Amino acid sequence: MSNLTLALDAMGGDHGPHITVPAALQALALYPQLTIILVGDRIAIGEQLRRHHRTESSRLQLLHAEQVVSMSDRPLHALRNRRKSSMRLALELVHEGKADACVSAGNTGALMAMAKVVLKTLPGIDRPALTTALPTTTGHPVYMLDLGANVVCDSETLFQFAVMGSVLAECVGNRRRPRLALLNVGAEEIKGNDQVQQAAQLLQATPQLNYRGFIEGDGIFTGAVDVIVCDGFVGNVTLKTTEGIARLLVQQMRQAMEGNLLARALGWLLKGRLKRLYRQMNPDQYNGATLLGLRGIVVKSHGNADNAAFLRAIEEAVLEVQRQVPGRIKSRLESVLLDKS
Amino acid sequence: MSNLTLALDAMGGDHGPHITVPAALQALALYPQLTIILVGDRIAIGEQLRRHHRTESSRLQLLHAEQVVSMSDRPLHALRNRRKSSMRLALELVHEGKADACVSAGNTGALMAMAKVVLKTLPGIDRPALTTALPTTTGHPVYMLDLGANVVCDSETLFQFAVMGSVLAECVGNRRRPRLALLNVGAEEIKGNDQVQQAAQLLQATPQLNYRGFIEGDGIFTGAVDVIVCDGFVGNVTLKTTEGIARLLVQQMRQAMEGNLLARALGWLLKGRLKRLYRQMNPDQYNGATLLGLRGIVVKSHGNADNAAFLRAIEEAVLEVQRQVPGRIKSRLESVLLDKS
Repeated sequence: MSNLTLALDAMGGDHGPHITVPAALQALALYPQLTIILVGDRIAIGEQLRRHHRTESSRLQLLHAEQVVSMSDRPLHALRNRRKSSMRLALELVHEGKADACVSAGNTGALMAMAKVVLKTLPGIDRPALTTALPTTTGHPVYMLDLGANVVCDSETLFQFAVMGSVLAECVGNRRRPRLALLNVGAEEIKGNDQVQQAAQLLQATPQLNYRGFIEGDGIFTGAVDVIVCDGFVGNVTLKTTEGIARLLVQQMRQAMEGNLLARALGWLLKGRLKRLYRQMNPDQYNGATLLGLRGIVVKSHGNADNAAFLRAIEEAVLEVQRQVPGRIKSRLESVLLDKS
Repeated sequence: MSNLTLALDAMGGDHGPHITVPAALQALALYPQLTIILVGDRIAIGEQLRRHHRTESSRLQLLHAEQVVSMSDRPLHALRNRRKSSMRLALELVHEGKADACVSAGNTGALMAMAKVVLKTLPGIDRPALTTALPTTTGHPVYMLDLGANVVCDSETLFQFAVMGSVLAECVGNRRRPRLALLNVGAEEIKGNDQVQQAAQLLQATPQLNYRGFIEGDGIFTGAVDVIVCDGFVGNVTLKTTEGIARLLVQQMRQAMEGNLLARALGWLLKGRLKRLYRQMNPDQYNGATLLGLRGIVVKSHGNADNAAFLRAIEEAVLEVQRQVPGRIKSRLESVLLDKS
């Protein structure tokens, strides 16, 4: 692995430096070639460093930011009034080439808006998309996008998402010719709304993509495809539904296990596995999500990520830097568009 | 309970009379005032009756239908070419007042189209909606609509769904002043697409409804509200996602329990509870879904329903007849529209 530098929005998320600093220290121990720039309030970060008996070093730098984007800031407000925030400065480090990627657990809408303004989208991409890897019964993940960055999408946007998702599944998910589907209310060709129908036509006419047709909600987790494309409204509701189900499941399992002593013993035995299962069912919370389509790598960790989850987001960023995801999206898009024209 | 008559589409679903006939016999045993008209192929139904040592009687009638709507028939095709099908004749029995409700496990799209043509929608309702009760952590169900009957919905349609869902939650779910929410990508007022935004305004201006604002996907199962309204695209994907998650869960639990002998033994102990949990996670499959907004009661059982699930659909129909759901929707709608004008 060659040297690489990540800019961390150390103030983002519900817990800020309490989580981001220890996760950064763990990442530095895991990746000897990694340099991390912690961006945020000097005092709050310094306190966490002292608590872990660490100081700044060549591999652990600190960039002071006097502002913080709060979880309730509206995107436009953050864009206008949080120019000196940790989130914005971290993104600017990527834009200036001082960092290879940015990781933030902050306000998704603000991150999206700032990333678009600071980094710009890749040529041919109208809007960035939010994506994450969901678990499937085969063990291979499926990448789903968009997860809420774009509430309304036309067919052209869905098409661009398909290109981006396919590249991610190939580069980071190690899938060859990733199988791709559009999320719909039925598998039959006649089903769906206009956007989905027209996107299907665009995808069918693009041999560079391994388009397999429509998939329904119950097909997301079967591993039948590697990439699932939908608009941000549907994607967001779907992702959050899986989180809601996970919570319902844990509660019901707990109730079931309270029943008798043996069941309780089983619950104890299965605790680790249930926890892993629960994490899998909260992919966004655990894996982090990626903002695809920008001229730079931005990984969004869940707001209430714990240490391990924020570390996962850092690892995702490392992987995307190594696999040069934005460059590959750009060249794939160029080849697709060239063939189309 | 006063006398009531149900028309069963005996041929509908993946298993036809193999499932519908025994479920009908169970229902007759459970409800002494119930009469069932089995509509379908005389020979196939007769065979099942003989297998259960039963013959036609005053409470168990048979209406021969020479056609069957197949699961793959397109709605328009079924409408034009299946006029003598068991589904159509069962609906006509309701229209003619010879039955109080119809239950079918057949092709959803065809049932929807035929029901709309045969029974017509209630005054003030543009389009019928498909709804079912989903489980929540509080134990009280939440009614969600639309689940796929209407892929594109404007704000006025969403408003009508809100009225219908509230009446169902009140009459069948026994909730007083059911709490109502719109499914959205965020709880904040500014979130969402135009339809959802405008529907929110309509609902805020309607004091007869207990509108509580937006809810996200992870809020569906918390029991925070009693009725959730969304368009059929989002509703269908959400419902099928819960089914997909249920399958993933069962597979993962199985894997977890294979780990060691003790876990396996205890897993066996928990089997019943897990099965119940799984059923809860497949509400559509288990509870059946209701077509709301018609001048008559139509309950749709899942295509691969088993005996117990089809019986549940029959019970739902009985309950809706007893509680006079269509009449109450009509009068609620009139009072809401009167106040608005």
